[in-house]
Amino acid sequence: MRDFDETNITEAVLEQFKNTPNPRLKTVISSLVRHLHDFARDVDLTFDEWNYAINFLTRTGQICSSARQEFILLSDVMGVSMLVDAINHRMPEGTTATTVLGPFYVENPPEFPLGFDISRGIKGERLFVEGTVTSASGERLGNAEIDVWQSDTDGYYDVQRSDLSEPTLRGRLHADSQGRFHFWSILPSPYSIPYDGPVGDLLKATARHPWRPAHLHFMISAPGHEKLVTHLFVRGDQYLDSDAVFGVKNSLIQDFTLQPAGVAPDGKKMSGPWRKLVYHFGLKPVAVAAAQAR
Amino acid sequence: MRDFDETNITEAVLEQFKNTPNPRLKTVISSLVRHLHDFARDVDLTFDEWNYAINFLTRTGQICSSARQEFILLSDVMGVSMLVDAINHRMPEGTTATTVLGPFYVENPPEFPLGFDISRGIKGERLFVEGTVTSASGERLGNAEIDVWQSDTDGYYDVQRSDLSEPTLRGRLHADSQGRFHFWSILPSPYSIPYDGPVGDLLKATARHPWRPAHLHFMISAPGHEKLVTHLFVRGDQYLDSDAVFGVKNSLIQDFTLQPAGVAPDGKKMSGPWRKLVYHFGLKPVAVAAAQAR
Repeated sequence: MRDFDETNITEAVLEQFKNTPNPRLKTVISSLVRHLHDFARDVDLTFDEWNYAINFLTRTGQICSSARQEFILLSDVMGVSMLVDAINHRMPEGTTATTVLGPFYVENPPEFPLGFDISRGIKGERLFVEGTVTSASGERLGNAEIDVWQSDTDGYYDVQRSDLSEPTLRGRLHADSQGRFHFWSILPSPYSIPYDGPVGDLLKATARHPWRPAHLHFMISAPGHEKLVTHLFVRGDQYLDSDAVFGVKNSLIQDFTLQPAGVAPDGKKMSGPWRKLVYHFGLKPVAVAAAQAR
Repeated sequence: MRDFDETNITEAVLEQFKNTPNPRLKTVISSLVRHLHDFARDVDLTFDEWNYAINFLTRTGQICSSARQEFILLSDVMGVSMLVDAINHRMPEGTTATTVLGPFYVENPPEFPLGFDISRGIKGERLFVEGTVTSASGERLGNAEIDVWQSDTDGYYDVQRSDLSEPTLRGRLHADSQGRFHFWSILPSPYSIPYDGPVGDLLKATARHPWRPAHLHFMISAPGHEKLVTHLFVRGDQYLDSDAVFGVKNSLIQDFTLQPAGVAPDGKKMSGPWRKLVYHFGLKPVAVAAAQAR
């Protein structure tokens, strides 16, 4: 194979991939080649633009660390993360809608007992969160595993702060035998996604803002059910209609109701006002997931 | 903008890019969004596959260093580099065909006088290279800048070797006032592109070989002319028809003729056999380049 022009090179590349043993990989890589080549041809990509792209992707990879995942961020702002979410989650009635994972999840978070304050006392409006985890049918899922993570009042996750000595506003709880859970935290704030790297450059060059509406992240697992990855958003946030990563769904916007000083549901005496969030998560049984798989 | 499904999210993302000030950037990014989304929809990309892609791209960025450019390699094996080359180089008669830059070019290479031996004496078949640099019209381009870089007999570039104390098989020469040049080197070998990183994983998973036919790289500049980036390939190489990066053009395959012991063109006495390559480079005037630009 020699002397390729801008038309016949695509078939030549597909030819070199023709012996891919895994049929699914062959399908995915062949489609990727076609779409990448179509893109380059459609815009008559210049050598300088290609060179910029190579440098952009390299910087995106090099800025990644245990505390930063810039490629997820790039996928998020390009709408690819939400698209993959939509493709894979055709959810039945009785289940909670899904949304993006985001770049701030940390594997193996610290475990906490029910009722723990995951804020560890940092500043912010106190927030009491309670609810249940059920199957789509309504059956309670006892001992369901609940990972939660969120930003602080200034809009930062713990992994973005160098002044914290332990995981904060992040942790793993288990529902009780009746699928019930509760914990303390603080009200999350809207925040700018990391803006000082390649993805920030992209947003600046395209006159896009980097803000996300305030939310709590949840990842919930129970035997026999698809893992649920979602957020709960704070109703009234100014960025609900222009989330930089396209993650908002109406059903995930919740009231974080303001409560007067007094006694909280777990008996804690509150000397000032506090917030309460109640949410009942519905998980999709794996049998349904398998039947819907295409 | 809320509650996106796999169909309407694409328009929502394009909407967020609508205020991009630079019209060319807006065109490129909008096309990229459409093609990326079409790809994900066409193959029903799964979350696990997305996750693999995020990790693959991250590893690709993280393995890059001053001595390794894995994203160029990825672009090369996907045929994107050669496609961009084809799109941008519709070459007039009298000019040398272009091919990929590759990942081993180093900025600001050491300067050498005409006749220098860029191999610095390392093992290999001695090679004498001579020729001229002319404009498409045939006019000689005096003092043209010639960057050359190549692999050694074992198939490695200097930046891949830790045992060399100075740039080897790489350098910058200037043609004389008549556009003539000559230098000494060694015969290059076919080689495997770097195979121990993400791109190697891709080639293994798709049953593709990583070999490139033996070649010398050239980058040639002269005032009033487009920079020429090309290779000269060794005729008879077994990989000319299956170059892992799709870079071969028939007009770039040259004779590296075997010469008996005796006196070389520059008067050097050769006690054993040696090789000779003669090539006349033709550069595209910028005026032609501008007229062809779309």
